[in-house]
Amino acid sequence: MTHPATPQYTLTELAERLGAQLIGDGSRRIRGLATLKEAGPDQVAFVANRSYIKDLANCRAGAVLLHPEHGAACPVARLELANPYLGYAHLSQLFDPILAAPVGGIHPTAVVAEDVVLGARVEIGPNAVVEAGVELGDEVVVGAGSFIGAGSCIGDQSRLHANVTVCHGVIIGKRALLHSGCVIGGDGFGFAHDGGRWHKIAQLGGVVLGDDVEVGSCSSIDRGALDDTVIGNDVKIDSQVQIAHNVRIGDHSALAGCVGIAGSTRVGKNCMLGGGVGLSGHLTICDGVQVTGMSLVTNSIHEPGVYSSGTGAMSNAQWRKNAVRFKQLDDMARRLARLEKRDQQG
Amino acid sequence: MTHPATPQYTLTELAERLGAQLIGDGSRRIRGLATLKEAGPDQVAFVANRSYIKDLANCRAGAVLLHPEHGAACPVARLELANPYLGYAHLSQLFDPILAAPVGGIHPTAVVAEDVVLGARVEIGPNAVVEAGVELGDEVVVGAGSFIGAGSCIGDQSRLHANVTVCHGVIIGKRALLHSGCVIGGDGFGFAHDGGRWHKIAQLGGVVLGDDVEVGSCSSIDRGALDDTVIGNDVKIDSQVQIAHNVRIGDHSALAGCVGIAGSTRVGKNCMLGGGVGLSGHLTICDGVQVTGMSLVTNSIHEPGVYSSGTGAMSNAQWRKNAVRFKQLDDMARRLARLEKRDQQG
Amino acid sequence: MTHPATPQYTLTELAERLGAQLIGDGSRRIRGLATLKEAGPDQVAFVANRSYIKDLANCRAGAVLLHPEHGAACPVARLELANPYLGYAHLSQLFDPILAAPVGGIHPTAVVAEDVVLGARVEIGPNAVVEAGVELGDEVVVGAGSFIGAGSCIGDQSRLHANVTVCHGVIIGKRALLHSGCVIGGDGFGFAHDGGRWHKIAQLGGVVLGDDVEVGSCSSIDRGALDDTVIGNDVKIDSQVQIAHNVRIGDHSALAGCVGIAGSTRVGKNCMLGGGVGLSGHLTICDGVQVTGMSLVTNSIHEPGVYSSGTGAMSNAQWRKNAVRFKQLDDMARRLARLEKRDQQG
Repeated sequence: MTHPATPQYTLTELAERLGAQLIGDGSRRIRGLATLKEAGPDQVAFVANRSYIKDLANCRAGAVLLHPEHGAACPVARLELANPYLGYAHLSQLFDPILAAPVGGIHPTAVVAEDVVLGARVEIGPNAVVEAGVELGDEVVVGAGSFIGAGSCIGDQSRLHANVTVCHGVIIGKRALLHSGCVIGGDGFGFAHDGGRWHKIAQLGGVVLGDDVEVGSCSSIDRGALDDTVIGNDVKIDSQVQIAHNVRIGDHSALAGCVGIAGSTRVGKNCMLGGGVGLSGHLTICDGVQVTGMSLVTNSIHEPGVYSSGTGAMSNAQWRKNAVRFKQLDDMARRLARLEKRDQQG
Repeated sequence: MTHPATPQYTLTELAERLGAQLIGDGSRRIRGLATLKEAGPDQVAFVANRSYIKDLANCRAGAVLLHPEHGAACPVARLELANPYLGYAHLSQLFDPILAAPVGGIHPTAVVAEDVVLGARVEIGPNAVVEAGVELGDEVVVGAGSFIGAGSCIGDQSRLHANVTVCHGVIIGKRALLHSGCVIGGDGFGFAHDGGRWHKIAQLGGVVLGDDVEVGSCSSIDRGALDDTVIGNDVKIDSQVQIAHNVRIGDHSALAGCVGIAGSTRVGKNCMLGGGVGLSGHLTICDGVQVTGMSLVTNSIHEPGVYSSGTGAMSNAQWRKNAVRFKQLDDMARRLARLEKRDQQG
Repeated sequence: MTHPATPQYTLTELAERLGAQLIGDGSRRIRGLATLKEAGPDQVAFVANRSYIKDLANCRAGAVLLHPEHGAACPVARLELANPYLGYAHLSQLFDPILAAPVGGIHPTAVVAEDVVLGARVEIGPNAVVEAGVELGDEVVVGAGSFIGAGSCIGDQSRLHANVTVCHGVIIGKRALLHSGCVIGGDGFGFAHDGGRWHKIAQLGGVVLGDDVEVGSCSSIDRGALDDTVIGNDVKIDSQVQIAHNVRIGDHSALAGCVGIAGSTRVGKNCMLGGGVGLSGHLTICDGVQVTGMSLVTNSIHEPGVYSSGTGAMSNAQWRKNAVRFKQLDDMARRLARLEKRDQQG
């Protein structure tokens, strides 16, 4: 795949930017990254894991990013670094065509309210809409077709891709990355039930996102009922995630795709929720909790560790037999206890 | 968080609008709602639950909305009402800045087909698109960037937030509230399989939403294959919900976030589906059924009540041991029965 | 529901287009399709399933599409065909008002970069945005408000409905159908963890969709980290589906609503994933695998067949008792084995 405007660097430039030790010809021009097996002479590969060292022998890359202790096995130029996976992360950003693209200014088709406060070098794409009272920090990018509602505030260097929706009264920190289709600040789900029908509770709180938050495609973070929904610093949220009103998520936590968190639940710092995990409402999950994919958590968790629920997949024929027995499980347990008692008495 | 255009009321005005009994100074100006612990002198708090009465003593609110029987414990002005939670719902709507904002008319960048029928005081936001043959009732609001497909019809006082998609031939009742990113009327998922490949079945039905329906951010309601997909009156649908073609949902039912309902299933009136619940296709769920979060329902339900499936979360170490045994459950049941038989014979 | 621009055909025309044998008056005008019970004299119904033959007697349809062996039971005109369900699929496409609508050209409010390569009869709707370097094949339709990022390429006769997002560097084959709210090419979820925080791995791969791919409302397919995410030919993806970076899906596979597939997993050809199914990352699922609704697959599958996990729904009271026992399952299994041993020794 060729990208428009993909940047290029010499190996010397890359070594400087990464703080890596270069062994090889620094004038070689590098146009991208690839896997060890597929990298060609104008690409850099990396070895972040001992199990890939065997692939070094046949490597045709322009250079390989690796730990100094694996340098001897490398038949081509190399960039030595104590943490090659972190080096890969930094390198990947250097080659991101989105970050490399020139700043576009404010497109004439964008609809920007008169009183909007714009930082330096702000870009607003075609057909984007920015309502009254909004503040955009320096180098904020608002993608085509995106919407920012009245009174919202977006910190320096934050980037909204195309077709993002930020509702009114939302506060977003610095360096946020919001992917297409995500919605920040839709109403939380709150109703009073009376006289056989639902009466809406207007959601008067907002959403506050810390610095360095990423939100994936088609994810939604609902606004609070009275207080705000609060997402900490460096929280990473994948695609198709739903975060309900008044949830609070601690710094550095990561939520994989399709996670759903019900209202008012608090997730600690440095937590990791696997894909499709569901957390019930009004829970407290302490710092350092990991929950494996598609588990349901209905009680608060007070000890760090790894948690799971559910059953593994098996053939449908086998599953049908076992799933029927699940409905008899309490009965089985009672019968087992009865047998044990008789056995002891006998 | 401060909103633009947040409305203000005196306590006398609020008492009148709620039909509440005011005890205290009616001239006090109120600018918002807050929790009992955080409300200041220009905010109203509420007590909807006996367990919060203990917090009344330290309350600094401008007034508290509560049941008359708790009035004596309130150290500040109070609004007495038989159902304070319902009163909170009504009060919250009075302070909703979205509802309080002035009507914006039809923005010059909106693309509205010539034959569109517009009710009184319709608002169409910037860059919205309204196709031919559409009818919009009185006081309908179409948010920025929203799309309404050919021939669709939207009832009085319905509100589409920014970036909502209503496809062609969709009928929406009065007072609907559609949140950003939701899609009403995308194709249902139907194919004939022949010759080793799929042949699309065009989805010729529509979607009909009753009155007072709310649809959350990024939710989707697919159009029917031949007949319509039908959502009853006062049905409340949270974010990230998927409703497949030809589903029918009865009046006053509520679906929490991430619910998925497969094709042609009928859900009764006054049902409540917890977050992440899945209903298989072609089922009938009777009135008054509640399903707890992340349960899978594969058979019709004919008795009102609460239903569940799945297993609760535990430590991963504990879970691994138990989940392995789940695969042996049928075998365990047979061995248990054999032991019982031998025990009786012995 | 009446659609604008619904096409009409005589029975003779329909018989020709379907390759069906017509028995009856070929001059009758047909305006649509309906179920056997509801079809009127200007509509065609169909019998694809033996169990509906009993309904033929009271049928008022203008004609019925059925297998020749059921012809004698049909009281009205009939269209005989060896595979009536496939005939229904073809017929439904003839009546699709979307396909029948005239081509709209490039709307003056669309923002199309100067260097975009446009095939013949391309339609670009109002307020759509097409960035630099994009190529659109013949008869491509880009719906209102949709976005196509720099350097993307879309094959002949592909159709993007309103408010679709195709990010930069995405390759889409011929005859794709992308529904509103879907996002193709948002970033995959990749970070290096170092120094107590996350470091983003820029997602430099793209997304490649084969020919005849359908993607439902609000679904997301993330771009690859280095290599592309690849969706085969004739893959059908329902609404609210999440496909993570570097996933590969084989030809003719079908994914129902709310499926989530984690990174780098490979799904074979002719697979069918039920609603809400979750696949863990880095798995290989062979050709011809079916997974039933809401199952979690955490291991690779090497044999074609039907697979399941989870437990069926029951009353909450019953479930609570059994779910508690699930946590004791390993203990129960050990106790059972002990009893058996004692029984054999005794």
